Amino acid sequence: MHVTLSATLAANQDIERRRRAGQRVLHLAFGEAGLPVHPALRARLADASGNNGYGQVAGSPALREAAAGYWTRRGLPTDPDLVVSGPGSKSLLFGVLLAIGADGPADIVLPMPSWVSYAAQAEIIGVRPIMVPAPPGEGGVPDPDLVASAVLHARAQGRTVRSLLVTLPDNPTGRLARPSTIRRLAQIARDLDLVIISDEIYRDLVHDPVAEYLSPAEVAPERTIITSGLSKSLAVGGWRIGMARLSHTPAGWALRDRLLAVASEIWSSPAAPVQHAAAYALTEPAEIVQRVNESRRLHGLVARAVADRFTKAGASVHAPQGGFYLYPEISGFESAAELAHTLIEQHGVGVLPGSAFGDNPRAPRVRVATSLLYGDTPDQRLTTLHADDPLTLPWVAESLIHLESALTDLTAARQPSQRRIGVLKPAHAVR
Amino acid sequence: MHVTLSATLAANQDIERRRRAGQRVLHLAFGEAGLPVHPALRARLADASGNNGYGQVAGSPALREAAAGYWTRRGLPTDPDLVVSGPGSKSLLFGVLLAIGADGPADIVLPMPSWVSYAAQAEIIGVRPIMVPAPPGEGGVPDPDLVASAVLHARAQGRTVRSLLVTLPDNPTGRLARPSTIRRLAQIARDLDLVIISDEIYRDLVHDPVAEYLSPAEVAPERTIITSGLSKSLAVGGWRIGMARLSHTPAGWALRDRLLAVASEIWSSPAAPVQHAAAYALTEPAEIVQRVNESRRLHGLVARAVADRFTKAGASVHAPQGGFYLYPEISGFESAAELAHTLIEQHGVGVLPGSAFGDNPRAPRVRVATSLLYGDTPDQRLTTLHADDPLTLPWVAESLIHLESALTDLTAARQPSQRRIGVLKPAHAVR
Repeated sequence: MHVTLSATLAANQDIERRRRAGQRVLHLAFGEAGLPVHPALRARLADASGNNGYGQVAGSPALREAAAGYWTRRGLPTDPDLVVSGPGSKSLLFGVLLAIGADGPADIVLPMPSWVSYAAQAEIIGVRPIMVPAPPGEGGVPDPDLVASAVLHARAQGRTVRSLLVTLPDNPTGRLARPSTIRRLAQIARDLDLVIISDEIYRDLVHDPVAEYLSPAEVAPERTIITSGLSKSLAVGGWRIGMARLSHTPAGWALRDRLLAVASEIWSSPAAPVQHAAAYALTEPAEIVQRVNESRRLHGLVARAVADRFTKAGASVHAPQGGFYLYPEISGFESAAELAHTLIEQHGVGVLPGSAFGDNPRAPRVRVATSLLYGDTPDQRLTTLHADDPLTLPWVAESLIHLESALTDLTAARQPSQRRIGVLKPAHAVR
Repeated sequence: MHVTLSATLAANQDIERRRRAGQRVLHLAFGEAGLPVHPALRARLADASGNNGYGQVAGSPALREAAAGYWTRRGLPTDPDLVVSGPGSKSLLFGVLLAIGADGPADIVLPMPSWVSYAAQAEIIGVRPIMVPAPPGEGGVPDPDLVASAVLHARAQGRTVRSLLVTLPDNPTGRLARPSTIRRLAQIARDLDLVIISDEIYRDLVHDPVAEYLSPAEVAPERTIITSGLSKSLAVGGWRIGMARLSHTPAGWALRDRLLAVASEIWSSPAAPVQHAAAYALTEPAEIVQRVNESRRLHGLVARAVADRFTKAGASVHAPQGGFYLYPEISGFESAAELAHTLIEQHGVGVLPGSAFGDNPRAPRVRVATSLLYGDTPDQRLTTLHADDPLTLPWVAESLIHLESALTDLTAARQPSQRRIGVLKPAHAVR
């Protein structure tokens, strides 16, 4: 295990240090939803402040029933007993990796690029990720045309490969895999007998409310595990609550038992008061649905505005489709690390290099998170959430101007003599 | 990994099932503190219901400073930067195991018996526990006279052994290791270059407030990691909050960095509102100190009363010294499983077999947890906590009578012809 502090969390701490030191930094490095907690959830948490028992490892019956309802309403009928909650979908993903490799580490196919923690979690327990690029223009999904040969090659070398992972929609690219791609991938997973782990934590934040969304659980229900949570759609990352949905098959039930065993020995359960609030949220009362809708709209508006700034500065970037991320490429840099380093050191713009997401370190691509542009105080953020045109609010507009100016400077400064200045060793790149 | 649901959590779920089915069951199987949350902590949790950011992996500065103060007041000056919080000391223990074995699984010396999850956690990540019996009459500490040969034997077989663990005071035995034993163990740890993991989650629940308590961090500060939490002393197990204290040495700092790396990839941080309440508790204001003192008194009174019932029925049991456990042996049974099974099936008394704690399965010993005797409602429990003589409250007295009668029946029923009835396969024993 040669793992370091999660790149996103480390970048967040680095930027906070710079800000405390008086630097003006545009924080585009951290995937925090950047909005206040809905008051109804705060009230539910407070109501449950007396809940101090350990409770069930899988989570309270109310929470599991609510989660089952959440998925059932999305075309995925769900048995509450096949729901397992955890302190964040991150911990559940880790538990699922352990559960899949119960008899020894089993390797996993990941999209390239993909969220920093998938590969890092794998490395902690001796699982080797097989990075497979996403199809051109897509993100969060390994190219079905490349998966079979990658898996067969690994197996021919004696490796055990048991799963593949998709992120729908994706972090870092902000892209949503096409239904046709998911269908092809499901078929390949079936052919190769792979479990599909579908990280759908950004599902409710697909910007276009009528976009076609296909979960692998619809086309390969027998082999798909969905993970999700409230950290993104309801901005409660710090509350640590996620849930997993196992498949209604003997293998799914067995995997659930192993996941519960692992959970019982590592984290026991999410915090009980948080479970109570989450159960309310997952029943999707009108006030919560409205909050998610408002958040989705805001994330989309700002992500597209930021993408426009990058495009205008000559970057190549696919339009963000979900969540609060985009993944621009800016030519003229020798590496993702150089680009990210130049942006923070010379232009006060904090982003993460694509290499932190397992991308080719020579490709000058960075992940830009847009959700911390909504304001510096809860009041500002709430105003931004409810504004007719949030882009014209002074604190948002100023950040966009800072960004536009930084990107203009960056482009102007692309002189060969200066290009070397920012070169960093790879070990520094993920800070 | 052949791990099943944590034995304690599984037993709890089993007993709840029996109760729902209408059985009268005395629940002596689960280490939940059985008391309500102090209102000041409930208020602090509610105050922090708006805390939704991810925050620092190690925990908020306020929490870490409060934890450092907590240890400093106990004769262990602590740098807040060497404090790492987590969602329960359980998760921190798992993270520490991973951090110690960063370059591959490193085996660990555990006391025999010891808390169910130490060995189970080890097994999940391929660490083999080396079970070393506690010295006669003690618990929670491997016999220093046996540790060196066990470690040298394992090393001669090519195994890597890097740590040993103590529980002060102990679950399951309720015993507190003698300072002289801790001193000898610290010397042996130094000789063998072992990290000492000191689980001190029951520290504030040592029944005798003037009992001599020696943490290995006092005598081997360079190699001791303390884990603790509020689940037991303040009855907030369901809130999931623990903290670890690393040593102020280069090795301690390195271990801290690895622990943070692991934490960042598995759980991120404890729930933010819980951190806020925990920070308040760890500053130890008078109202919280009073609550811990009251709890300690109650746990001691009831644990001793239960121990008396076992002694009266002919069991052999050492007087409990801390927490809410005792560990009686009742002769006439062929195994711990048979004894535990007979108690639940024939007498409605739920306990855990010693074998669940790594003890010799043929030894008819069980762990008895006494903390769920305080009542069935928060009101009853609070009344029990504040009663001058809690043992005379009807709901406590009735349970003690149930127990006394069950133990009398158990002894009376010890006829050879009946002894076979309760025999269970080992696989069932930990339920």
